[in-house]
Amino acid sequence: MPSSDSWRSESEIASERVGITSVSVREKILDRIHSPSDVKRLTEAQRRQLADEIRALIIDTVSRTGGHLASNLGAVELSIALHTAFDSPHDKIIWDVGHQSYAHKILTGRRDRFSTLRQGGGLSGFTKRGESEHDPFGAGHASTSISAALGLAKARDLRGGDEHVVAVIGDGAMTGGLALEGLNNAEQLSTDVIVVLNDNTMSIAENVGALAVHLSKLRMLPLYQKVESRAKDLVEKIPAGKTLFRTAEGISHGVIRLLGSKVGAVFEELGFTYLGPIDGHNMELMVEVFESAKKLRGPLLIHVVTKKGRGYEFAENNARAFHGISGFDVSEGIVERSSGNTSYTKVFGDTLVELASKDPRIVAITAAMPDGTGLARFAETFPDRFFDVGIAESHAVTFAAGLAAGGLRPVVACYSTFLQRAYDQIVHDVCLQGLPVIFAIDRAGLVGEDGPTHHGVFDLSYLRHIPGMVICAPKDTNELRDLLATALLYDGPIAIRYPRGAGPSEYQAAPPRLLDVGKGERLVEGRDAAIIAVGSMVYPAVAAAALLAEEGIQTTVVNARFVKPLDEDLILDVLKLGVPTLTVEDNVVAGGFGSAVLELASARGFQLNSLRCVGVPDVFAEHDSVEHLREQFGLSSSGIAQALKKMLAETEILTPRPVFSTELQTSKAHGSQ
Amino acid sequence: MPSSDSWRSESEIASERVGITSVSVREKILDRIHSPSDVKRLTEAQRRQLADEIRALIIDTVSRTGGHLASNLGAVELSIALHTAFDSPHDKIIWDVGHQSYAHKILTGRRDRFSTLRQGGGLSGFTKRGESEHDPFGAGHASTSISAALGLAKARDLRGGDEHVVAVIGDGAMTGGLALEGLNNAEQLSTDVIVVLNDNTMSIAENVGALAVHLSKLRMLPLYQKVESRAKDLVEKIPAGKTLFRTAEGISHGVIRLLGSKVGAVFEELGFTYLGPIDGHNMELMVEVFESAKKLRGPLLIHVVTKKGRGYEFAENNARAFHGISGFDVSEGIVERSSGNTSYTKVFGDTLVELASKDPRIVAITAAMPDGTGLARFAETFPDRFFDVGIAESHAVTFAAGLAAGGLRPVVACYSTFLQRAYDQIVHDVCLQGLPVIFAIDRAGLVGEDGPTHHGVFDLSYLRHIPGMVICAPKDTNELRDLLATALLYDGPIAIRYPRGAGPSEYQAAPPRLLDVGKGERLVEGRDAAIIAVGSMVYPAVAAAALLAEEGIQTTVVNARFVKPLDEDLILDVLKLGVPTLTVEDNVVAGGFGSAVLELASARGFQLNSLRCVGVPDVFAEHDSVEHLREQFGLSSSGIAQALKKMLAETEILTPRPVFSTELQTSKAHGSQ
Repeated sequence: MPSSDSWRSESEIASERVGITSVSVREKILDRIHSPSDVKRLTEAQRRQLADEIRALIIDTVSRTGGHLASNLGAVELSIALHTAFDSPHDKIIWDVGHQSYAHKILTGRRDRFSTLRQGGGLSGFTKRGESEHDPFGAGHASTSISAALGLAKARDLRGGDEHVVAVIGDGAMTGGLALEGLNNAEQLSTDVIVVLNDNTMSIAENVGALAVHLSKLRMLPLYQKVESRAKDLVEKIPAGKTLFRTAEGISHGVIRLLGSKVGAVFEELGFTYLGPIDGHNMELMVEVFESAKKLRGPLLIHVVTKKGRGYEFAENNARAFHGISGFDVSEGIVERSSGNTSYTKVFGDTLVELASKDPRIVAITAAMPDGTGLARFAETFPDRFFDVGIAESHAVTFAAGLAAGGLRPVVACYSTFLQRAYDQIVHDVCLQGLPVIFAIDRAGLVGEDGPTHHGVFDLSYLRHIPGMVICAPKDTNELRDLLATALLYDGPIAIRYPRGAGPSEYQAAPPRLLDVGKGERLVEGRDAAIIAVGSMVYPAVAAAALLAEEGIQTTVVNARFVKPLDEDLILDVLKLGVPTLTVEDNVVAGGFGSAVLELASARGFQLNSLRCVGVPDVFAEHDSVEHLREQFGLSSSGIAQALKKMLAETEILTPRPVFSTELQTSKAHGSQ
Repeated sequence: MPSSDSWRSESEIASERVGITSVSVREKILDRIHSPSDVKRLTEAQRRQLADEIRALIIDTVSRTGGHLASNLGAVELSIALHTAFDSPHDKIIWDVGHQSYAHKILTGRRDRFSTLRQGGGLSGFTKRGESEHDPFGAGHASTSISAALGLAKARDLRGGDEHVVAVIGDGAMTGGLALEGLNNAEQLSTDVIVVLNDNTMSIAENVGALAVHLSKLRMLPLYQKVESRAKDLVEKIPAGKTLFRTAEGISHGVIRLLGSKVGAVFEELGFTYLGPIDGHNMELMVEVFESAKKLRGPLLIHVVTKKGRGYEFAENNARAFHGISGFDVSEGIVERSSGNTSYTKVFGDTLVELASKDPRIVAITAAMPDGTGLARFAETFPDRFFDVGIAESHAVTFAAGLAAGGLRPVVACYSTFLQRAYDQIVHDVCLQGLPVIFAIDRAGLVGEDGPTHHGVFDLSYLRHIPGMVICAPKDTNELRDLLATALLYDGPIAIRYPRGAGPSEYQAAPPRLLDVGKGERLVEGRDAAIIAVGSMVYPAVAAAALLAEEGIQTTVVNARFVKPLDEDLILDVLKLGVPTLTVEDNVVAGGFGSAVLELASARGFQLNSLRCVGVPDVFAEHDSVEHLREQFGLSSSGIAQALKKMLAETEILTPRPVFSTELQTSKAHGSQ
């Protein structure tokens, strides 16, 4: 996996800029690194070269595979320092979110497979227990590492073990309630745990919240240096700009510690020993601090300051754009944009701006993802009506409930998988009170390369059983526009879920139509079979009907549009056909849309041996392309067509009568006589 | 609603103890209080009398209706002070959890209905938007008030309103991640909001966490007094014991404020102006502080110190026992214990202690409810293996995942409704990693008088669709014991859900039997109809079968025992009978157990016109007795019997053939030929 030439010059520029002596990259240190023990043997100069090589490998790989770039480039030196000071897998290193663990993966025996990153069957883009013994706790969602580390630490205490437990958490993830609950609980557990706060001044977008302000005050302090002789030349290059410099006051146990100051007070009051701030690109210093930290007792917070995108100028200058990306051109620093139709995300964002210009009640909330959710334009256009609450989905939803109780029309824009964090708030604060909060659920369905922690395949199941919730899913971007306009006039909780990426049809940007809540549409008529599809499965269903038509099978296709309330008239009309019928969704079958249709049919006493549900099966879908995953689960148009043909074949065997049975209608007529 | 004589003497004792001049209670101030505006006209002495009268009314009412006693007695003066200083409903007062809002209800036009507290059709035991315009945001779960208040405040700002928004939150609820997310977000929102921290040094049990330690330091400070002349006699009675006393340093805007001290630093660093600590039973002082607070800008935290159970000696001395109670004897202070069979909660707790004595891997986690979940004995027996993490369900689950990753067998004991807070942690941290965490889900199903915020009727639906999760429910306490022993040996995530209260059979305490995961049992044989029941619905199903037998209808009854994985063989055997079949559960039908059976039947091509699901319908069940609610939803034995008889009648009309059809079996046999 040679580094690309175009990067190499970047690397040299970067090296010069950060004051690292340029080392020939021809003799690869990486070739000698098969496990963390190999890292420990390196000289200081070799470690610096290793950092350069890892950067080159990450940039080159991610330019082809896509992935998280900026966060990983920022954590290269931190990863090397951790594996120098600690002894993984005996010691446990837990990476919060896991989207900064590429260097860790490369150092822990996964370099040879690194080119398979995020590809089907390849390495995960996050940490994963099943992938390596060096991943003691997997992740994908933010803010879990402190709680997990405390659990591993207490398990160690009870078992009588001696391993160190280290959680590495970003300043963004620190705003999550789970992390704050963990911080608050740490002291009481009376255990030794090391929290490395990887402070890069942003989560995905710029960071928000009072804790971020607190951290920014800490960052303004001089970086502490244990060894004066080594310090000046490095400290003068620190990101914060001003290069104040002094030896540490209050050195205890050989560790730099800040004393007698109100700064750091939050962590100190929460029972942590606070160490820092420390230059997160100075490996020698970090190793010294980590070595000393191993001797300290109780919960410890080591504050390291890093720069997102470090060493790749384009990413340093635009870390937001280089957070999670598809491929990119290394020498030009141009992030590939998906071609083809307009994305759901963009249509959502544009439509919301348009509607909000006419309705002052409309406000928008994101949990640290103004770009990912398409709200950046809204934020620029209506800064007073836009709220980025940080990585805090629970608060986002209850805050929205408060806004709705105050007479506004809040739109919570959130990825399906992250909205899981707010399940109780949706139940208890929004739906129980019938408040008009609009949930714009992006990345619903299979998301592809981000894998099992990120697939949005549970939302229909975790929302459908909540009384009072309305749930809809557009078949394309034009319908998203219509549904958003409809939702903003609906007086109650309503969720619109739509997939990642571009819509299946050309976006018209026509004036949005108001749709009837709870009404679907029949797209294709046919008397041999039927498909009731929802959301992103509607177009594949239509394509499946076309495939079947080629074989002479005429298939009815319904766009359910609403998962709750169901369009009962339309669906029962289809069921009355008495022909093999499939429900199709890109949600798990369990408790999902098809399950709702079964419940309806059962409640109305329909014969259902001709009704089957197609959707994501009862497994955590792995990372792979959306196309592959859909094929795997029978959600492609050919898969849907196959499933119906199978049912038709079974029906012919089971039923000697004509397929076009109307027995049920007749029976019902009898019953009502 | 006269106060009981037995209380009156208590009241006088209490009044003397707290130094309030005893006022005749014959001339009722309460008779004059029809809305908060009437409160504002009272003299200081009248307010004290009012507090006495409200206490009497609360004690008398709760002794009969049950409810939250200690928390409400602690908040009487606070409620009066708030309604004196603020102008509800124009100003918004949001009570966190809502279990301390009785005085607020009495003061806001609900006195006449107060005797209906927690009764069907009567007042809710919590705040509720539909109940009064004085409840701007309802609650039941903890830690929501800050987020909600911020939402209401920003809505006010955007609307150009001038109302004050006040959140009243206990120190216990402050440990919840949602509250911490709200605290962290407040400063950035640049809005005026008042958070009253009602600090009674405990949540339900004793409080835990670093924030609690921080608060305890704050409480040790002298209480501040604005007016010296009034101070000494009151301050000498403060709960904290030591009666240090000084005038405030740093009075700003006429408000007592603590300056130049590290104490309070957490709140100050989070961007709040910290005021306090203030005696939460001194109404004059609180009114003065609140009046001054109205003039301050930005987020404000007013720290009031109250005593749970205040004014009722038995409750003061044992606030844990008098937190949420059924009825009690006022003069003796004896809390009624439910008679009859042993409770599920106790059997769980006792069995866990027994099993843990043999398996050192077993540890237990509660989120601030050691008593409610039955873990108190475990905590005493194995203090090192017991973790009360505070009101922090999300952290409880991820912490448990860490413990499991460290080789232990953690048992998270939690009420069904509160576990909703940890949905994402169950998905992402436990199930995705296949970690052996045992969820002991208490208060599953309908809980009765606590109402819609507390019914545990969603757990089967929010857990069933998670891949890898095993879910079971015992039919009685003996089976709970067996299932707990089974779960502790199972190597993966497993949830056991059981209802509030006593089991339907006598508890045997026999050695626990290990059961097969995914296997149910057939309890009654019958060829006319069938019931597949789960958990607390099994005994009613058996009773329904007995009722039907009296009419000559022979009904098969199955105890499904496992909701996931289903006992497919057993269930398909029942479906093959081809007779009217009901699934019965005390969970919502949507996505629940019956839904799982429908999915199974559909996947296997069964005819479903003879299969119906009985469960909680798609509404938020109100507060009422469990018995009434079960009747309302057709979950009583007679309701179940009725439903089957209705199906049998329909079948006879629809099907001229004999009821005992084996058509399906025949069809399948044909198909396989």
